[in-house]
Amino acid sequence: MKLRIEDAEKIADKLRFRFGGLIVAVAQDAFTNEVLMVAFMNREAFVKTLTTGLAHYWSISRGELWMKGETSGNVQKIVDIVLDCDYDTVLLKVEQIGVACHEGFRSCFHNKLQP
Amino acid sequence: MKLRIEDAEKIADKLRFRFGGLIVAVAQDAFTNEVLMVAFMNREAFVKTLTTGLAHYWSISRGELWMKGETSGNVQKIVDIVLDCDYDTVLLKVEQIGVACHEGFRSCFHNKLQP
Repeated sequence: MKLRIEDAEKIADKLRFRFGGLIVAVAQDAFTNEVLMVAFMNREAFVKTLTTGLAHYWSISRGELWMKGETSGNVQKIVDIVLDCDYDTVLLKVEQIGVACHEGFRSCFHNKLQP
Repeated sequence: MKLRIEDAEKIADKLRFRFGGLIVAVAQDAFTNEVLMVAFMNREAFVKTLTTGLAHYWSISRGELWMKGETSGNVQKIVDIVLDCDYDTVLLKVEQIGVACHEGFRSCFHNKLQP
């Protein structure tokens, strides 16, 4: 999925950015439905994601835009994007190249509680 | 899943609450893997979720704890809980009774972008 910047900006206009300009983004494997990671996007990250077809996020800790996989090569190719009912959360259905987690796991969610 | 309060508190101690004491929670259908909704939890909501086996969240707009389905009956029974690598996001694998979305949809993610 790659949109023209005008179309991406129009969709971004619908979103409700909170926490000083952020929305929550959930990346889900488009083929297995595994939830891979959760991160934040500001408006620029959202628009870049739509126009490039590759997931971009806003790093709160580093205070900067980042493209997932920019250094590792573990990019996320956008297959589909679904917005929630409140327009403040984005579900990215992605083709995950390599792994999503910086610890080498396929998914960041790998600490299962043992009841 | 229902934990004793002592065990739930120990797990809560590991979490990194941000944004004034909140973590992001993703509810995923435990059987179909559909992502149902995203909401926030404070420590109390997290501990209540573990001790009751039913999803509880913190409503930012209303400034109060809420049990999902308390009035509608559309509760989320906890099947599994998985923490992410940074311990600041929770993935709830749930048995969703009825629908997750207040608009009547099974999932809150029902606004698919049409590229």
